[in-house]
Amino acid sequence: MAYFLDMFGTAVFAIAGALAAGKKQLDLFGVIVLAIVTAVGGGTFRDLVLGAPVFWIIDPNYILVSIGAAIFTFFLARFHMLPDRALSLADAFGLAMFTISGTQKALEFGVLPTIAIMMGMLSGGGGGMVRDVLAGEIPLILRREIYATASILGAGLFIGINFFWPGHIAAPLAGILCTLIIRLAAIRYRLSLPMFIPLEKEK
Amino acid sequence: MAYFLDMFGTAVFAIAGALAAGKKQLDLFGVIVLAIVTAVGGGTFRDLVLGAPVFWIIDPNYILVSIGAAIFTFFLARFHMLPDRALSLADAFGLAMFTISGTQKALEFGVLPTIAIMMGMLSGGGGGMVRDVLAGEIPLILRREIYATASILGAGLFIGINFFWPGHIAAPLAGILCTLIIRLAAIRYRLSLPMFIPLEKEK
Amino acid sequence: MAYFLDMFGTAVFAIAGALAAGKKQLDLFGVIVLAIVTAVGGGTFRDLVLGAPVFWIIDPNYILVSIGAAIFTFFLARFHMLPDRALSLADAFGLAMFTISGTQKALEFGVLPTIAIMMGMLSGGGGGMVRDVLAGEIPLILRREIYATASILGAGLFIGINFFWPGHIAAPLAGILCTLIIRLAAIRYRLSLPMFIPLEKEK
Repeated sequence: MAYFLDMFGTAVFAIAGALAAGKKQLDLFGVIVLAIVTAVGGGTFRDLVLGAPVFWIIDPNYILVSIGAAIFTFFLARFHMLPDRALSLADAFGLAMFTISGTQKALEFGVLPTIAIMMGMLSGGGGGMVRDVLAGEIPLILRREIYATASILGAGLFIGINFFWPGHIAAPLAGILCTLIIRLAAIRYRLSLPMFIPLEKEK
Repeated sequence: MAYFLDMFGTAVFAIAGALAAGKKQLDLFGVIVLAIVTAVGGGTFRDLVLGAPVFWIIDPNYILVSIGAAIFTFFLARFHMLPDRALSLADAFGLAMFTISGTQKALEFGVLPTIAIMMGMLSGGGGGMVRDVLAGEIPLILRREIYATASILGAGLFIGINFFWPGHIAAPLAGILCTLIIRLAAIRYRLSLPMFIPLEKEK
Repeated sequence: MAYFLDMFGTAVFAIAGALAAGKKQLDLFGVIVLAIVTAVGGGTFRDLVLGAPVFWIIDPNYILVSIGAAIFTFFLARFHMLPDRALSLADAFGLAMFTISGTQKALEFGVLPTIAIMMGMLSGGGGGMVRDVLAGEIPLILRREIYATASILGAGLFIGINFFWPGHIAAPLAGILCTLIIRLAAIRYRLSLPMFIPLEKEK
């Protein structure tokens, strides 16, 4: 079940990476690389910093799922106009999954709750950050306050519930839902805040 | 004492990160992330490359100090015009502190002096490098020769004194002062070299 | 012999880094830093992800060769017009050397062939990726399909031959030649595809 969620997070993040690549008119290979980086980048940072073995070295399925999702998105985007919002939506789902799985993995390594929350945020937001830097953009996570806030609140809720019912399935579910709902609400809310956009690039 | 200096370096680098974020009109959260990245980025690289446990996983105070300094700077900048030079000054102090503490940590891991000097430069300059990349700029360290030169000379002086009086307090103090004085002199000198500036961005 | 090839790869990648720095009109120090990053960046990633000790910590010759090649290129470029193609050529040689040495090192760590190929690609392409990000460009590896394709095919051929004749010298030689020939052919072919260039930057 946890494994399935992780693979689902990997796939949606890979889709988000492929969609970001599409905006830059990269070729198929560039799309695959950006998809892989987005999908495994955050978790790679987390594992390096925790001193854990890097997860996709042990289980190459993460790479294969990313490649599959990227190719699927690449061809889908050629035949259908994908809504502008698809990137934000895929990113929100990935953020929610990876925030909680990252927090959980950090807790298993015995770090303090503050650090576990940071690790959740790094897992959830790190891949997208590298994706944006490679694509020549200032990272989304730096420009949208509610992005990381969603991650922090979800990770905090997960740690709180997990403290009282260790290992109970309610903790990750509540954390994922909390992150997802806040982030999706922020995406919808952002649509009514167009004045934020002119601030995006070098003034 | 060493710990206090390290925290001081963390705080000034976090301030430098927050000021750089301010120039890009990021929101409070973006400011905090850039501040943390600037403050702990260089040391994180150093620890990963050395194979040491990452310092802020063991002692989360580094993160808390960074967050505090970022919030302080954010609100201060709203009420006072900060001088243009504040970013360069804070950066110079952080560079001096972290160069020496990074060199010292590398020596404790038994690496060669050449590598220890590189580790000092990486600790001192790495955070600012990541900060500039995230903010969409070509890193300061690549554009200003005296930046890394100050770091290399300070680290070399520290290693030299430390060779003759191992563990003596004079070694880190001399190294920090050397880096700081060269860098501050370079900042003042740069002010009289405005012709360098047109070369900054893609010609 | 393997060591000599590795040093040769380091030198040509450092030259490629220095040439990329030259295009940005960085100063001598910026040139040296970009050269080092290009030369050792990919292998550093590979070692961190594999959990291996970082190679240039153990053998600082890699750093010294990079610095030497950067200084040589810097002064050569001042006195001779270097052909536009020099950067691509040096990059192609470095890609071929490092792809195979990276794949080989990964295999020695007992990873699966898929992951070993990725590690080869990371070793070969990672340094140039960081170089381009630091120089404010979208990485070459994302924009030119044949770049990483050359790396993947060369690494695959190496693994294939190595499977039947483990440790035979033909395996790395064939892998290096395969990568190099495909990449060089792609460079020449690209010259007849100028329409790809207008897509380079934010549309």
